[in-house]
Amino acid sequence: MDAEFDRGGRASAIDAVEALVFDMFGTVVDWRKSVAADVADLLEQWLPGVDPHEFADAWRGEYQPSMERVRNGSRPFVRLDALHRENLESVLDRLGVPSGTVPSPDLAEANLAWHRLDPWLDAVPGLTRLRRRFIIAPLSNANVRLALDVAKRAGLPWDAILGAEVAGAYKPEPAAYLRTAEILGLEPGQVMMVAAHNSDLAAAQDCGLRTAFVRRPTEHGPGQTSDLEPEGAWDLVAEDFEDLANQLL
Amino acid sequence: MDAEFDRGGRASAIDAVEALVFDMFGTVVDWRKSVAADVADLLEQWLPGVDPHEFADAWRGEYQPSMERVRNGSRPFVRLDALHRENLESVLDRLGVPSGTVPSPDLAEANLAWHRLDPWLDAVPGLTRLRRRFIIAPLSNANVRLALDVAKRAGLPWDAILGAEVAGAYKPEPAAYLRTAEILGLEPGQVMMVAAHNSDLAAAQDCGLRTAFVRRPTEHGPGQTSDLEPEGAWDLVAEDFEDLANQLL
Repeated sequence: MDAEFDRGGRASAIDAVEALVFDMFGTVVDWRKSVAADVADLLEQWLPGVDPHEFADAWRGEYQPSMERVRNGSRPFVRLDALHRENLESVLDRLGVPSGTVPSPDLAEANLAWHRLDPWLDAVPGLTRLRRRFIIAPLSNANVRLALDVAKRAGLPWDAILGAEVAGAYKPEPAAYLRTAEILGLEPGQVMMVAAHNSDLAAAQDCGLRTAFVRRPTEHGPGQTSDLEPEGAWDLVAEDFEDLANQLL
Repeated sequence: MDAEFDRGGRASAIDAVEALVFDMFGTVVDWRKSVAADVADLLEQWLPGVDPHEFADAWRGEYQPSMERVRNGSRPFVRLDALHRENLESVLDRLGVPSGTVPSPDLAEANLAWHRLDPWLDAVPGLTRLRRRFIIAPLSNANVRLALDVAKRAGLPWDAILGAEVAGAYKPEPAAYLRTAEILGLEPGQVMMVAAHNSDLAAAQDCGLRTAFVRRPTEHGPGQTSDLEPEGAWDLVAEDFEDLANQLL
């Protein structure tokens, strides 16, 4: 923990914050419930008996490995929509539906499930309050169009859509955080990363950003075991976005 | 003009449009009046007697030449805030205030005049209506933070902040238009460029975008001589953003 935090420094460090940047999947939106509901019809046709939530988990399970191939340089930057599509096909294949079975337009439509994610109920009212004092933007691995579609459908009042595609790097690469601060014309310490994931906050903190942990104990369903508690010296810990607004405003 | 436009094709071409992207300086905001009002105090101190509108014109006069050095590869991409600052210093120098005379914080504050531009009166109501059917975003040479600050102050309801900095290229380079369409996940023909400048629309049209000319006959003051009329086969011509909404909705 920085020395400045020891006695009263925490408040002044937070006073310097001009922009709040948000992780999206899990932090702003309930991807698991939304994707499960969205793909239910597809599954009924091609994989009857497969639980939609388990399918959503399997699809999401490919998320980090697919980005890792970009992060480690095995392939050039490709937007998340393309990774989601590849991951959908590989999950279907693994479950016994080989590539080419489902018509391509149906796969494209299923892939748009990620553009129709519902926000947690506190997200819109919390962001609406926070926007009065701060610049607010997603700093997500979502590509611009995905984040834009989610925001437009859900009414998320972002000031801009930032993130991996604009930065040209996937979190938790330092460039994702540092380039976002640079685009905002701010020093890293003037930007606060808001996330429900300790690993995201750790990477942001390493880059000099301020950090706020928001509890989302059902992101992975009722049996969630990870990210139930803050695991680092984060600047703030909040129950939800309304609580975050209460603490910051 | 495309053959498809000959008999009823115009309407169907416009039906394909999913996103409207807007030039900002002159089209959405009245930069001349805003900058003149903003720098009046600075001029009173350092250049008494210089007309603020003439100063705004002189500052803006450096805009295209400064971007041209990026476009022709003489220097790497640098955001518009940096060009505006360099141009401010060179205009002051030309008017007899050498570099180093005005304190740097005062220059930085003056440079923020471009972050405080007022919109034309029809802009917010027109955009608010258009946003219900279309994705709307600036496709401006402004950097993200500049466009964001203008939007937040004026209440421009953009779905995203796009433009030169995100595309990595200044208009009228094709990459500025094509990369913006790509980020939106759209074909060029699904994107309509809205601008008060014929040259911007010509470049957009060459890239396959649809085009709408909006009249801004006082952008350059009462004696404006350029861009008073549409000078190409644009898909639409509108008196202002309310008229654009009337024609598109």
